[in-house]
Amino acid sequence: MELTDQAALTSGSAFWKTTAAGDVPAITLTDGPHGVRLQSDAGDMLAGRPATCFPPAVASGSTWDPALLHRMGEALGDECRAMDVQVLLGPGINLKRTPLGGRNFEYFSEDPVLSGVLATEWVRGLQSKGVGASLKHFAVNNQETDRMTVSADVDERTLREMYLRAFQRVVTQAQPWTVMCAYNKVNGVYASQHHWLLTEVLRDEWGFEGIVVSDWGAVVDRVAALAAGLELTMPGPDDAGDALVASAVRDGKLPAEVLEAAVARIRALVDKAVKTTGTYDAEAHHALAREIAARAIVLLKNDDEILPLRTEGQSLAVLGEFARTPRYQGGGSSQITPTRLDDALAEITAVTTAPVRFAPGYRTDNDAADETLIAEAVALAEGSDVAVVFVGTTRETEGADRADLDLPASHLALIERVVAANPRTVVVLNNGAVVRTSPWDASVPGLVEAWLLGQAGGSAIADVLFGRVNPSGRLAETIPLKLADHPSYLDFPGEAGHVRYGEGLHVGYRGFDAREQAVSYPFGFGLSYTTFTYGEASAIAGADSVEVTVPVTNSGARDGREIVQVYVSKPGSRVRRAPRELKGFAAVDIAAGATGTVTVTIPRDDLAYWDVRLGRWVVEEGEYAFAVGASSRDLRTTATVAVTGSPDSRWPLAADSTVSEWMADPRGAALLREAFAAAPDSPLVAAAGGEGEFELLGGMPLDRLALFPGSPFSPETVAELVKQANA
Amino acid sequence: MELTDQAALTSGSAFWKTTAAGDVPAITLTDGPHGVRLQSDAGDMLAGRPATCFPPAVASGSTWDPALLHRMGEALGDECRAMDVQVLLGPGINLKRTPLGGRNFEYFSEDPVLSGVLATEWVRGLQSKGVGASLKHFAVNNQETDRMTVSADVDERTLREMYLRAFQRVVTQAQPWTVMCAYNKVNGVYASQHHWLLTEVLRDEWGFEGIVVSDWGAVVDRVAALAAGLELTMPGPDDAGDALVASAVRDGKLPAEVLEAAVARIRALVDKAVKTTGTYDAEAHHALAREIAARAIVLLKNDDEILPLRTEGQSLAVLGEFARTPRYQGGGSSQITPTRLDDALAEITAVTTAPVRFAPGYRTDNDAADETLIAEAVALAEGSDVAVVFVGTTRETEGADRADLDLPASHLALIERVVAANPRTVVVLNNGAVVRTSPWDASVPGLVEAWLLGQAGGSAIADVLFGRVNPSGRLAETIPLKLADHPSYLDFPGEAGHVRYGEGLHVGYRGFDAREQAVSYPFGFGLSYTTFTYGEASAIAGADSVEVTVPVTNSGARDGREIVQVYVSKPGSRVRRAPRELKGFAAVDIAAGATGTVTVTIPRDDLAYWDVRLGRWVVEEGEYAFAVGASSRDLRTTATVAVTGSPDSRWPLAADSTVSEWMADPRGAALLREAFAAAPDSPLVAAAGGEGEFELLGGMPLDRLALFPGSPFSPETVAELVKQANA
Repeated sequence: MELTDQAALTSGSAFWKTTAAGDVPAITLTDGPHGVRLQSDAGDMLAGRPATCFPPAVASGSTWDPALLHRMGEALGDECRAMDVQVLLGPGINLKRTPLGGRNFEYFSEDPVLSGVLATEWVRGLQSKGVGASLKHFAVNNQETDRMTVSADVDERTLREMYLRAFQRVVTQAQPWTVMCAYNKVNGVYASQHHWLLTEVLRDEWGFEGIVVSDWGAVVDRVAALAAGLELTMPGPDDAGDALVASAVRDGKLPAEVLEAAVARIRALVDKAVKTTGTYDAEAHHALAREIAARAIVLLKNDDEILPLRTEGQSLAVLGEFARTPRYQGGGSSQITPTRLDDALAEITAVTTAPVRFAPGYRTDNDAADETLIAEAVALAEGSDVAVVFVGTTRETEGADRADLDLPASHLALIERVVAANPRTVVVLNNGAVVRTSPWDASVPGLVEAWLLGQAGGSAIADVLFGRVNPSGRLAETIPLKLADHPSYLDFPGEAGHVRYGEGLHVGYRGFDAREQAVSYPFGFGLSYTTFTYGEASAIAGADSVEVTVPVTNSGARDGREIVQVYVSKPGSRVRRAPRELKGFAAVDIAAGATGTVTVTIPRDDLAYWDVRLGRWVVEEGEYAFAVGASSRDLRTTATVAVTGSPDSRWPLAADSTVSEWMADPRGAALLREAFAAAPDSPLVAAAGGEGEFELLGGMPLDRLALFPGSPFSPETVAELVKQANA
Repeated sequence: MELTDQAALTSGSAFWKTTAAGDVPAITLTDGPHGVRLQSDAGDMLAGRPATCFPPAVASGSTWDPALLHRMGEALGDECRAMDVQVLLGPGINLKRTPLGGRNFEYFSEDPVLSGVLATEWVRGLQSKGVGASLKHFAVNNQETDRMTVSADVDERTLREMYLRAFQRVVTQAQPWTVMCAYNKVNGVYASQHHWLLTEVLRDEWGFEGIVVSDWGAVVDRVAALAAGLELTMPGPDDAGDALVASAVRDGKLPAEVLEAAVARIRALVDKAVKTTGTYDAEAHHALAREIAARAIVLLKNDDEILPLRTEGQSLAVLGEFARTPRYQGGGSSQITPTRLDDALAEITAVTTAPVRFAPGYRTDNDAADETLIAEAVALAEGSDVAVVFVGTTRETEGADRADLDLPASHLALIERVVAANPRTVVVLNNGAVVRTSPWDASVPGLVEAWLLGQAGGSAIADVLFGRVNPSGRLAETIPLKLADHPSYLDFPGEAGHVRYGEGLHVGYRGFDAREQAVSYPFGFGLSYTTFTYGEASAIAGADSVEVTVPVTNSGARDGREIVQVYVSKPGSRVRRAPRELKGFAAVDIAAGATGTVTVTIPRDDLAYWDVRLGRWVVEEGEYAFAVGASSRDLRTTATVAVTGSPDSRWPLAADSTVSEWMADPRGAALLREAFAAAPDSPLVAAAGGEGEFELLGGMPLDRLALFPGSPFSPETVAELVKQANA
């Protein structure tokens, strides 16, 4: 192939099309992730053809149900095929580092295992239809503020264990056809030209076989991007950039093999892609969207069993414009033109035989409280058996982080006044990332977190409110008492081009737990209309995994679904760890009165931490505690089991290891004691006998000790000790 | 001078002596900082000749009284002269980043202004006697764990505003004869060979005129240390190192001028040093130690005016071994052999005519509760009018950080049982860094923080307990409710060679305030036996400073001393700041019923923040709030005044500045609007009209926008815009 054709293939020919060059045809990539957003109007980048608007990831993530995500992936694949789309730009699996993230509604969780497990099934489902996924945004794109310039400064262990971990799982288990690089810099280097990230980690370590595509506009330097391992720059055309690539190869600045390899990978992708058009079953997809949405709803409070509502003899005041005009998705590239749109008001009215009265309660074009609208709502609340108040965020969008966690003033005023008028009030929240519920939730008996649920959200809400679906959604992110409590708070959004990930590993619940902070609702939390009791957990460690088994009984009167969660701790670990980490979970249906035996298999790899001294994953030897329960703070039973450590995971001793470090290592301690004994006249050795003095000596690196007057060693002795210690 | 002599001069000849070479004699440097620790026994590095043990910095810092620190410096100078010591190794002014710091008792505060002001006067007092100070540990030596190897990883703004700020003040205002480099690394480079720190900042920016001496054993590479700006390596002899220095000069690896300049500076120091022996007034120094100690005591709780104690008719149970066996200093290099030692039990007994009974309450060699000792103490408490319980930390030392903030179990048990037996209980704390007082302090009406007070602590405690001194000490560090609340908690002590300063600027109270956290006792807090009321503050901005004036009335019945504190905020700042920062304070005596007019002058320089974009200190233009009060959380009156900004402090616009950044700059916005207007057909310009789309566009750097299909600009246009914007 001609050099110019090769170069042309590495950029798009249009906004959503690759380039056709030589014998390689073009394919279409288009936005997801929770629907197929195929641009319908050349003049409007954000207008799309109708497609099913499935629940955004904030909702699908709250299902904790990989099987549902698999089915959603399949349905999306069908829609892509119908619209001649070869690659759907999703799933988005960045961790929710901060609750303010403007794009949090497109991401699953603050936990990498939950995110990774769900995304893996989404990708498998999609790709089973012959349509490629684009795992994004790789990596550490956790905020919208300055997203195209900011450097996310994060230490390697945190990077590996938290921000790359879900990507690693999806790549190794589902081989997405493409990975989309992030806009931001990672430790000072643009993700689009980050060789370590795109080649050393993604390709060499994880074995990624697809292509890396840029986020739209993420490439600063075409040649550097190719050299780093990015095959496809989008959007296009970029004739000037193509010419730079070609001349870099001609001038020897870019090895021809790098470009050839990129072209080969692009060709392989295009070869795999299916060009087809057709139809899909829009009604079936709507039904699936409704099923997922209902499973996504998290019941946060249900005092005095105010829920489920009764379908007869219970008059309802449905209050809040969102009941009539659904708030069901966020803004930006993921915005879908739905095939149809359910509203909760109509669905509620259709279910119950009792009177349903509606008042909007607030304006949607202004966050200030409107006294007239509130008074109208209060009057209806007073005259009804139960008030159901729909509130939420008025706007969340790609491109802008939120400024705070608060509901709009008009919504807060509505809740307060309605509850005062009728304490039998249920609040339904529609929001793409967590909102503050403290302190007003104390006075509300019913609280339903209904996220942004996609086009079938209205019917799904009715399903849960009336108990046609027994809620089983669980929080995939912590709801803090206030924004300032959040682990990321002091280090967000950064300034002057850098955001320091100061909380390190302590993302989300890991930070709240480490600091022993009270929260409004913890990670993993969610109520049901029934109750579950847990028997005693047991754990068996095998060669590749640990199996945790627990009997769970539905001790209530309704059939229900429980999300059984397993959190792992390593008491006495040699490295700092979060107090507990989600390592496995299972969504199980259990009939009223029945007992299910739930087994959660935790791959051994998920027990590993990234050892920065050794530069690799290490499973630490010893006893692990597997705590099983219904949320991160509702652990009912714990099984403990010994796990074999990774081979050769001893930390080597060095000349600049301290006396204390030598003494903590059995081999080192023996050698050092011998060396001390050989120099009984050294005042330092004598001093080491005293308690206080040993601490002064203990912090000293061996090579520094060798330079100290009166030292028992020479630098040569130290070199010999190091050799023997690591022999 | 011969090259070998030159090289020899740059290391010590012994543990506490420089080298005599050529015509340069040797001088003696010895440990401080709160006493002259002159080694008395060649075989025991830590044994010292008797000298006054003044209050350690944890106590002197709590006086908030620069004049007292000046007098302490003078007295230390007298003792140095009597003992033929030319340089005293102090003061220690590292910030108390974590309450666990093993050496916190040697440092003043978690605030750089308080630390810097106090240390400046200490140095001025000492050096007024012709004895040199050694400002230490330069820099970012905030923990003992791995102190000789760990890298303190801290961003430049935090470094400048927090960890270097007190050093800058003392160097520029008091010119200490020497600065001592720290053991640790700063951002990966050993402080002992950190050219930026030792030469660019210390010498070139701050104008330091003295010499840099290593902490004992801090030099890893003699040649690198000299090249970085470290003149004197201690201790010695280090013949091998001297030879390396000489051969590096011979080989041209170290410029001869570097060594010559170091020798010239060492010569200048030695020339300035006074060789003398004599005596000092030990009784007067003891009296001064007592005065400072009494002023250091912080009265934390005084419910029902349980204090001061009465000298007649009030029987006392004095409980706790520390009343008889004073806990008065920490371990390590600062440990002094005192000239005498007051114990609180004897002093209390001497003051009151009523019965005083004593029981030890706990053992000092074992932290477990001793039931027999407790029972004996409880019996005395039951039979006395008031119980005074002495508790504290059993061990704090250089070389080891603490594991937690808790009092020993035996002390906690003693408090609990005594309070149960007699609610009229006063607890006296002796500790070198804060201890947890929650939740037990709720049941104790009297709580006295008496730190480690030096050799006269026993009498000083009696002075305060009986009201001979009306307490005026204020907390120089926050007492948190629990350790996990502390801003440093998630990032201490680091591991694998690095400790990330993840909380950034939010050290101590800045972090608690930013996170709106409850604390046990806030920074700046302390009660008096009288009360003070504040009038209205006023502020006048001059060319070099802001003068804040406030009338303060002693509204109680006793003469007293108030520490008037001024905290500054910059509402709407263009950079992130702590909610409020201490910028000035005054210790003022006000007679009962009198009103004093207190003026606190805040140098304009102290209003500056370090601008990382411009690489210099910037005073931001605009209104500043000067809140005046009795603690960081007891602000009584606020004056607002406009301050002129630093010249040329506009942030320049660049090709990779985002559209939003351009729009936020008046000149940039005008230029960009013009450029947009010139390209009305660009779909991007059209999209920018929509609300959601503008956010997508707003985050885009101009140079990236230029590469986007449909861009209104070429890269050349962007270059021209940048030129015009910064013209």
